[in-house]
Amino acid sequence: MIEVELPDGSQLEVEENSTVEDVAYEIGTGLGDDTVAGKINGELVAKEDEVSEGDEIEIVTDQSEEYTQVLRHSAAHVFAQALKRIYGDQVKLTIGPWTDEGFYYDIDGVEIEQEDFEEIEEEMQNIIEEDLQIEREMLSREDAEEFFEDNEYKRQILDEEAGEGDTVSFYKQGEFKDLCKGPHVDSTGEVGGFKLLEIAGAYWRGDEENEMLTRIYGTAFSSESELGEFMEQRREAEKRDHRRIGREMDLFSIPEFAPGCAHFHPNGMKIRRELEEYIREKNAELGYTEVKTPELNKAELWKKTGHYEAFKEDGEMFAWEQDDTEYGLKPMNCANHSHIFDSNNKSYKELPIKLSEFGTVYRNEQSGELSGLMRVRGLTQDDGHAYLRKDQIEEEIKKHLDIIIEMYDEFGFEVNFIMETKPPKAQGPDELWDEAEEALGNAMDEKVGDYEVKPEEGAFYGPKIGVEVEDAIGRKWQLGTVQLDFVIPRNYGLKYTGEDNEEHYPVMLHRAILGSIDRFMGVMIEHFAGDFPTWLAPEQVRILPVTDRNQEYAEEIKEELSDFRVEIEERSWKVGKKIQNAHDDNVPYMLILGDDEEEAGNISVRDREEREEKEISVEEFKEALREEVEEKKLETDFLQ
Amino acid sequence: MIEVELPDGSQLEVEENSTVEDVAYEIGTGLGDDTVAGKINGELVAKEDEVSEGDEIEIVTDQSEEYTQVLRHSAAHVFAQALKRIYGDQVKLTIGPWTDEGFYYDIDGVEIEQEDFEEIEEEMQNIIEEDLQIEREMLSREDAEEFFEDNEYKRQILDEEAGEGDTVSFYKQGEFKDLCKGPHVDSTGEVGGFKLLEIAGAYWRGDEENEMLTRIYGTAFSSESELGEFMEQRREAEKRDHRRIGREMDLFSIPEFAPGCAHFHPNGMKIRRELEEYIREKNAELGYTEVKTPELNKAELWKKTGHYEAFKEDGEMFAWEQDDTEYGLKPMNCANHSHIFDSNNKSYKELPIKLSEFGTVYRNEQSGELSGLMRVRGLTQDDGHAYLRKDQIEEEIKKHLDIIIEMYDEFGFEVNFIMETKPPKAQGPDELWDEAEEALGNAMDEKVGDYEVKPEEGAFYGPKIGVEVEDAIGRKWQLGTVQLDFVIPRNYGLKYTGEDNEEHYPVMLHRAILGSIDRFMGVMIEHFAGDFPTWLAPEQVRILPVTDRNQEYAEEIKEELSDFRVEIEERSWKVGKKIQNAHDDNVPYMLILGDDEEEAGNISVRDREEREEKEISVEEFKEALREEVEEKKLETDFLQ
Repeated sequence: MIEVELPDGSQLEVEENSTVEDVAYEIGTGLGDDTVAGKINGELVAKEDEVSEGDEIEIVTDQSEEYTQVLRHSAAHVFAQALKRIYGDQVKLTIGPWTDEGFYYDIDGVEIEQEDFEEIEEEMQNIIEEDLQIEREMLSREDAEEFFEDNEYKRQILDEEAGEGDTVSFYKQGEFKDLCKGPHVDSTGEVGGFKLLEIAGAYWRGDEENEMLTRIYGTAFSSESELGEFMEQRREAEKRDHRRIGREMDLFSIPEFAPGCAHFHPNGMKIRRELEEYIREKNAELGYTEVKTPELNKAELWKKTGHYEAFKEDGEMFAWEQDDTEYGLKPMNCANHSHIFDSNNKSYKELPIKLSEFGTVYRNEQSGELSGLMRVRGLTQDDGHAYLRKDQIEEEIKKHLDIIIEMYDEFGFEVNFIMETKPPKAQGPDELWDEAEEALGNAMDEKVGDYEVKPEEGAFYGPKIGVEVEDAIGRKWQLGTVQLDFVIPRNYGLKYTGEDNEEHYPVMLHRAILGSIDRFMGVMIEHFAGDFPTWLAPEQVRILPVTDRNQEYAEEIKEELSDFRVEIEERSWKVGKKIQNAHDDNVPYMLILGDDEEEAGNISVRDREEREEKEISVEEFKEALREEVEEKKLETDFLQ
Repeated sequence: MIEVELPDGSQLEVEENSTVEDVAYEIGTGLGDDTVAGKINGELVAKEDEVSEGDEIEIVTDQSEEYTQVLRHSAAHVFAQALKRIYGDQVKLTIGPWTDEGFYYDIDGVEIEQEDFEEIEEEMQNIIEEDLQIEREMLSREDAEEFFEDNEYKRQILDEEAGEGDTVSFYKQGEFKDLCKGPHVDSTGEVGGFKLLEIAGAYWRGDEENEMLTRIYGTAFSSESELGEFMEQRREAEKRDHRRIGREMDLFSIPEFAPGCAHFHPNGMKIRRELEEYIREKNAELGYTEVKTPELNKAELWKKTGHYEAFKEDGEMFAWEQDDTEYGLKPMNCANHSHIFDSNNKSYKELPIKLSEFGTVYRNEQSGELSGLMRVRGLTQDDGHAYLRKDQIEEEIKKHLDIIIEMYDEFGFEVNFIMETKPPKAQGPDELWDEAEEALGNAMDEKVGDYEVKPEEGAFYGPKIGVEVEDAIGRKWQLGTVQLDFVIPRNYGLKYTGEDNEEHYPVMLHRAILGSIDRFMGVMIEHFAGDFPTWLAPEQVRILPVTDRNQEYAEEIKEELSDFRVEIEERSWKVGKKIQNAHDDNVPYMLILGDDEEEAGNISVRDREEREEKEISVEEFKEALREEVEEKKLETDFLQ
């Protein structure tokens, strides 16, 4: 007999060589019947896999979170089976895993185009309706080799994963059979809704020296309605894609000569400048003073703080040797801020000292993982570091929480807070951890109330509060953080003189409220789908003279509105086309100026929601616009 | 007979093997008698040196600009002679050239301290009063070797410069003789005023693997009065040293882990932020829109513009290979701005397009040449690029000149303009050069009037206007530039569609008005000696409560002045010490608040010029302060 551990921490005795399914039946017959797959020590496995002494076991049923992954894996097999039915031995299957959003399969041997999706989907639908049992089958290595006689990719996997005389796991459904560790659902009929999504190229094994394969992405759910929801959000997200909007509104570009390093064009920079000033104001309210530190430093700096190991050795840092010196681009600003803190003696009366910076950092993200403004290499954080006495932690956290709630609310984001506490390998004094976590808890209870706690998931150097925001279409983004740090002050030797005249280490608080300004802009572009609140819009008002003879009057009105970002449409288009074009450019307000308006000395206003009003005085509009901008209203307000 | 060319371009026939002095006598007996040295093809040489066919010859007399260099070189010999008299053979002389500010001599074998300067200067004075003839003497290489039997440094120079059987040039004055190419003045008595200045360490041959020598700096002039003027300016400059003031006012630091890369502390950043907003306003007036481009790019970018050769191959760029890609830190912003210009089609109607950026660039300056904020590796330019049609050049240059004159005037700097025209190796169409230089000339004539032209000294890619400013103590600094560029648009393939519906290259205008903001701050700190105009002062007002019981009233007054940068002195010092401390910190205004002021509800004001006034209403002060700040007045104004 052996002992395994269940999720509630209890121990269960089972016979040696028991499978996951056996364990489930040991717990209860109902659970045994419902078992789809299992988790051994956190890893998703087939229900046929055997457990060992001391393993932590979880049972996966169709009610489990992991069920969707298992289902998608089976959907990938349904896809592969359909290909085999259509293309026969011509198609060579390679790998087909599940992903966060569905599944993909990399294939070779046939050319598949978007137009072929319908035919493939029809065949997949047939296979699902046939409701074929999906069953595991163990083959000898030799039989497997023979099975894949014509498929060098699968043979390569066999070479790597199975030794001479080993048996390997296959999954079989109807006439289709594939090398696979599982797990899978019981039958193809469990796939309730599926869709093929797109085609891309992918190198075999991700290595660009290998063959280029065809990767087909798809998704699957247990019901049509879940699929419908997913496809709707996907359409919505595509409509809001910040890369497309960024191009159409001429906000930014990420040229090939600077992967992951955005160039902000005049329009994008107008938004960014508004954001910066907005953040500056909030930082001042929080008592931060701004500093500026260089991107380029000698690597020795991060050896002192302890970041060198974490960043450099993972290749995450841009670092190099030149003229016998090892240089690096800062991957974070805290080391440089700590130098500024350290540049003269501090007394307990001077604390907290709070330094903020629009700090540009560079991180060597893999080129394949870069994505628009969301995943970049060069980014500017609305960074800040506060150096605190420990009796100041609670008060400071409260102030920060207030401002975070206020700021995200002003953009119309829902915010969730997550608190991560002391991990097993924590550094820094235990009583400091205890006091700090109590202070954090108090502050969160008072200011947030309802928040998630992830026990033991904090960094080794201190507990953290994460800020997750939900955008207009319900997607979640991890943006701001408030992170305590007990370790850098000790590594760097930061000190202040206490009331007791002794030297003490300050507690350090790292924080970024919007996080990376670049990423925040990406999220914001998609959140607003380009329809920025007027205070942020690069062009707030566009004046559309009806004919060329109204051009001069247009100039006059523009002059009147010189406090705002106003452009005149100078192309000699028909007014309808001018209006359409302004809508395409997401301009909040259009002023239509024809002979009538010019004669009466007034204006006609149209907003991007297509509300219109005629014969309004420019003063009235100006006042309303000023109020809308000053109050940072989220919607165009004047014509509501 | 051979022919040489004189400075006026005329040809002179002289006998073969004629010396510079012979040429002078050929021109006229007076000039022959006055000859101190000469220049052959621009290089300063001894009057005994022989001229060759086709050489360009200039004669140096005691009226020439170069005379001071010759004199300082002789002063270095006087210094060396004095050392020999005092320390005998113990002292080993190495090299002793003239410099911009005087001379230095690197020596070995004896320890010299600042305290020894008096004794050495006395001996130097003796040598000058002895008025020893300085004469050239040619020795055989063997005799020279023997002479320097105990001096391995001089022997090393001999090894490098003289072959077997060569003769080498010595200069002799009294009992002293040294290996030297000259030139020198006729006798030690010509040194009218001299001073030893400081001691530093220097590696032999500048190589840190060699011995560390002692370098003694000195200066010399032909008269005591010139020396007096120099020493006065030097004292004044030391008092204003931006590195010292930067430290004392806690403005910035340049830590060892980031050579040449300044960290701006909160106080320095307050000044910098004011400057930035000031520049933004002026850029907007000029029609620039702001962009932001990354420091990190692939090196291929600069291969396209042609900068790669110029920067990378000289080692002036921070560049490295990582993950099989060659990266670099941008040494200038123009390539990235050109990408933004190029990101969509432009019509002639849209030009000029003007992009500005607070662009941070990095240049790998030699560590020995770094100096505070004046010579750095990381710097932010108030950079801008305008893309023009050629018919727009004159108008644009005029606008830029207006703003440059206005801006420097607002800091109280005198400005000189220098125009550099087409060099022999110019690129770009000739007629464009002609038109552009005419446009520049017209603009300069109208806006500047009196300016220097340096013919043929422009860059190969276009003519340039340089801005040289003179600070409060008369030192000159090269800061802003306005530079046309005909080459980048062609290299990068930038185009716009003309009225003729054809594609044309725009003319590019590079400009930085204050130049490097870092360097400008260094110059400005020294210009104002830390006494910044109130609009720039990091702390504009300091409130000094006379006793602790006036603390609350101080808070009230601070609240009243919340639009300004106001601090309260909270240390419980006597009021006299508080005042002294505020003066030391260069705070423009102090408000002294005691029981009398509190009772009457008014304030006493003192400014940094030590003017005082009592019983003033805080409203009156606030209004005056607002005006002083808004009008960017250079002096504290309220109590004048």
